[in-house]
Amino acid sequence: MQFLTELLASIKGLDSATCEQAWARQAQLTKPAGSLGQLEAIAIQMAGIASDALPEIARKAVVVMAADHGVTAEGVSAYPAAVTPQMVQNFLRGGAAINALARQADAEVVVVDIGVAADIEHPRLISRKVAYGTANMAKGASMTREQVLAAIQVGVEVVDELAQRGVDLLATGEMGIGNTSAASAITAVLLDLPVEKVTGRGTGIDDEQLAHKVAIIERAIALNQPKVGDALDALVKVGGLEIAGLAGVVLAAAARRIPVVLDGFISSAAGLVAYMLCPVVRDYLFAGHISVEKGHRFILERIGLRPLLDLGLRLGEGTGAALAMQVIEAALRAHREMATFAEAGVSEKE
Amino acid sequence: MQFLTELLASIKGLDSATCEQAWARQAQLTKPAGSLGQLEAIAIQMAGIASDALPEIARKAVVVMAADHGVTAEGVSAYPAAVTPQMVQNFLRGGAAINALARQADAEVVVVDIGVAADIEHPRLISRKVAYGTANMAKGASMTREQVLAAIQVGVEVVDELAQRGVDLLATGEMGIGNTSAASAITAVLLDLPVEKVTGRGTGIDDEQLAHKVAIIERAIALNQPKVGDALDALVKVGGLEIAGLAGVVLAAAARRIPVVLDGFISSAAGLVAYMLCPVVRDYLFAGHISVEKGHRFILERIGLRPLLDLGLRLGEGTGAALAMQVIEAALRAHREMATFAEAGVSEKE
Repeated sequence: MQFLTELLASIKGLDSATCEQAWARQAQLTKPAGSLGQLEAIAIQMAGIASDALPEIARKAVVVMAADHGVTAEGVSAYPAAVTPQMVQNFLRGGAAINALARQADAEVVVVDIGVAADIEHPRLISRKVAYGTANMAKGASMTREQVLAAIQVGVEVVDELAQRGVDLLATGEMGIGNTSAASAITAVLLDLPVEKVTGRGTGIDDEQLAHKVAIIERAIALNQPKVGDALDALVKVGGLEIAGLAGVVLAAAARRIPVVLDGFISSAAGLVAYMLCPVVRDYLFAGHISVEKGHRFILERIGLRPLLDLGLRLGEGTGAALAMQVIEAALRAHREMATFAEAGVSEKE
Repeated sequence: MQFLTELLASIKGLDSATCEQAWARQAQLTKPAGSLGQLEAIAIQMAGIASDALPEIARKAVVVMAADHGVTAEGVSAYPAAVTPQMVQNFLRGGAAINALARQADAEVVVVDIGVAADIEHPRLISRKVAYGTANMAKGASMTREQVLAAIQVGVEVVDELAQRGVDLLATGEMGIGNTSAASAITAVLLDLPVEKVTGRGTGIDDEQLAHKVAIIERAIALNQPKVGDALDALVKVGGLEIAGLAGVVLAAAARRIPVVLDGFISSAAGLVAYMLCPVVRDYLFAGHISVEKGHRFILERIGLRPLLDLGLRLGEGTGAALAMQVIEAALRAHREMATFAEAGVSEKE
């Protein structure tokens, strides 16, 4: 717990003087003020993160954390739990959507086994298994408090390693059959919303299965009684190892002043946990996209993030975040490379 | 007129057999069906355009057409008309937003003087000036029918040249102080909507100036009496040379089976003209983004295009379209490079 207290205390906000410099530059670039919309806001936020009025991204990585969920025993998913290790292998061989989209964004895919319920070996896999999946939250707490802290610590260590290798833009991704159930439970508890309002179809269940999924999540919450507004307790009672790990990624990245692009619903649930532990992390976050999964928008509204993309995605893995990395790079490129009115000899507004 | 009749007759729809092959492939890729949302639709459309179930983009270009507008004499814009040639110079020196965003998208910027009210010389400028700007539509027709046809022909010839150089993805862009007035007038006429509903603040006018702009456009329509639903007549009476030229780009690209990413309001007004002349062009169009300019959404709804981005842009130049090119490439990359369930040994839905 000591490490977490110290980590939270080390997170500081944006460098406001640099934000102002970047804002002043935007006002001088050859375009009507505000006409590049969110691209302008991205550039200013990135400047404040980097303490550099002309920020540039050197190295990008998508951290994909994989874990299993005991609640799959209740039949909450359209896919069997065996798909979690199968997809981890697919990530490692480069055949998943996140691999293709990360290649397009020129980002490295970092795959972390933080709790898959199977043994996986691969030279490129970061093996930091905290447990062979969570316990079934419909029958008791998902994790112990020690497991939650260990998973957060894994996230911190992964960021430490990536930071040492010069990574200066991170995206979050995840894989774990059953993890929309954990994300919905966390969202319902932390935002104090009805389960039905924040529970969607995940990988693609029908109406009857959705009603069952809602009932199981409601049962898990009723049984475990997580405290409203207590982010760590929510992870313990109804969380997932990959969600705890990604919360650690967000916290550690904010502490190291590295921006993080959140992916969809599960990644954003991790972002919400980090935000509730330390609201200043918001300064380091970008919402890569808005997912079809219905709980997602409530999280983004609570944190106060406007999504960069809305492409009807509901895959996870970090796919929406990897796509959004290209928008962020484009925003920085316009910010750095555009001529000012004075440089270009262009008349200003009359 | 002969060339236009022949051009329209040469436009054919998507290759539906290839669309079906691409659709079948999407269903086999390692992801829940439909979970990549619009990325899947993009890949299928691009396959049908290219008659290739695994399409790839070799070479991209943004065609930026620049022209002036006589209606600026009425004080409809926040910027002086002198900004049109100044910004053309900025494009040619690489200092504008479209240059930075096109570099990010690895696309060439092709600048065409189709009607700037000043002489511009530059080795990289494509000089095809049809007139030194349009006439003031508040006092008479913007153009003659011959000028409109000549401008469309310029667009066709530019596409011919780019196609010969292997360009297989186009984006439209434009520059012309006053051109939101022309685009609003065209939109009001062709969609039979009140001018007030489709007229926005352009480069940034205040409430009083906006009311004046609306009144000027209403006067232009009342005076010139363009025929509702007659796209060529709308161009003659209230159009712009760059809008006519970009309509030619869209038509020629569709005829040559080259996909076109529309940018914002003005580019989309050109797209609407092309669509009304030949509705099949829709098969070749992508809406790069939805602009802040309020008339834009009516055009996209009419053509039936869902925008790829919504980033609060209102700059034009092709900026939103250049950003969207990266989304299209990402969609194709996922489509080409992802493993199938069988290849990856991943279990399918239960």
